[in-house]
Amino acid sequence: MNLKGIKTRIIKVGDDLVKVILEEIKHAGIEIEDQDIIVVSSKVVALSEGRIVPLKEIKPSEKALKLAEQCELPPEFVEIVVREADVIYGGVKGAVLTLKNGVLQANAGVDRSNAPPGYAILLPKNPSESADKIRRGILERTGKKIAVIIADSRVQPLRIGSTGVALGVAGFEPVIDERGKEDIYGWKLKHTRRAIADCIAAAAELIMGERDEKVPIVLVRDAPVVFTDRKIDASEMVIPIEECMYMGVFTRSDAHCNL
Amino acid sequence: MNLKGIKTRIIKVGDDLVKVILEEIKHAGIEIEDQDIIVVSSKVVALSEGRIVPLKEIKPSEKALKLAEQCELPPEFVEIVVREADVIYGGVKGAVLTLKNGVLQANAGVDRSNAPPGYAILLPKNPSESADKIRRGILERTGKKIAVIIADSRVQPLRIGSTGVALGVAGFEPVIDERGKEDIYGWKLKHTRRAIADCIAAAAELIMGERDEKVPIVLVRDAPVVFTDRKIDASEMVIPIEECMYMGVFTRSDAHCNL
Repeated sequence: MNLKGIKTRIIKVGDDLVKVILEEIKHAGIEIEDQDIIVVSSKVVALSEGRIVPLKEIKPSEKALKLAEQCELPPEFVEIVVREADVIYGGVKGAVLTLKNGVLQANAGVDRSNAPPGYAILLPKNPSESADKIRRGILERTGKKIAVIIADSRVQPLRIGSTGVALGVAGFEPVIDERGKEDIYGWKLKHTRRAIADCIAAAAELIMGERDEKVPIVLVRDAPVVFTDRKIDASEMVIPIEECMYMGVFTRSDAHCNL
Repeated sequence: MNLKGIKTRIIKVGDDLVKVILEEIKHAGIEIEDQDIIVVSSKVVALSEGRIVPLKEIKPSEKALKLAEQCELPPEFVEIVVREADVIYGGVKGAVLTLKNGVLQANAGVDRSNAPPGYAILLPKNPSESADKIRRGILERTGKKIAVIIADSRVQPLRIGSTGVALGVAGFEPVIDERGKEDIYGWKLKHTRRAIADCIAAAAELIMGERDEKVPIVLVRDAPVVFTDRKIDASEMVIPIEECMYMGVFTRSDAHCNL
């Protein structure tokens, strides 16, 4: 598997992202091939879709003021988070833990880094739709059948630092179910599934960076994935709370006294 | 960045892992180079170190019996988990959520898949030591200065399926601190750190697989990491509970009523 970062100019509201991707890949001296996977940072997708909010026009609610103090974040920023989040679980310094489109995310995915000054960037409205749109756009303009991941950074429990998560996928199976298949000794796996799309998103996050690198696109070639034409719903990557090893334990009232 | 899976014969207790790695890389037609990163599955490291336990010799405790019933796992297996875990948080079907060497892990890392029949495989006793030992062994036998990750699979909150986590690292900086650095608009990042080693472990997990693939080694070339000779402690990748976005919220008594 090979990963190559694609540097781009600064992406702005209204940019034709398919055009930018194709221009910049060409500029890097690469020919797109069938079964390439193009990982796109959720931030540039959101920017191109106009998903930005000016902070100075925001009036924080009581709830946002309280949470902002707890998390040591600007109240206007937290107000946007409160509006965007589907569920708010609480906060630590620098981050509100939220559920957004089924994904646990810091600050409902709202972010000020690499946003135009004075603005916050939201998540793409529907990352799977965005992925599919880019996939179809590239097919129309090049004839190449590729796959697309809209990726965001994410932190893992008790780990320092961010890896990556696939918010939207088009063109390949994001999860591979190994249950019932055999290991090298013929033992049948009972619980094993593999978060293929998230693994690629984490690998791409390594190449993209988080500051002024201007590498919002990563071209992945020869990835061991199963390509498909069926439409992928982002909910296919989400496990129900009661089956989740972390949330199933920590959101259960008897979690700490069941032994 | 390029990742190449290295197929091996079945690893057994007492195998000289450095010898196996070098033989199999050579067999794959690859020359090791300075600054390669070799990702090794924690399972084959544990096997080579003799970290396996025969299930039939285990007598489950009351605690293990109760937890086994709750998680629908064999009591003998759960007894090993109870003995290995530093903290047990609770369980869901198929998994006990534990803390082991500072890392949140399913079943304290104890696993029956790809174990000799009737045995469970534990984690390596000290994955950082194991990584450093492999690194030094390869340096001694080839003169090449490489880096090593001991990787395990892990699940993420509310996501289906496993990605990867770096249990031990030698030869490069596992976390990059971007705090105080600037984004493309000159905005100073306040909280951003990057889990470099975990990103690579996730990418390698994609290549290794979880069943009968027999690919416990992944050679990573041209990774954007900072190589170092200093000794890496696995605790450098662990964030304190109160700073963790998930655990800081869910292990706080007022977590759900602070708004």
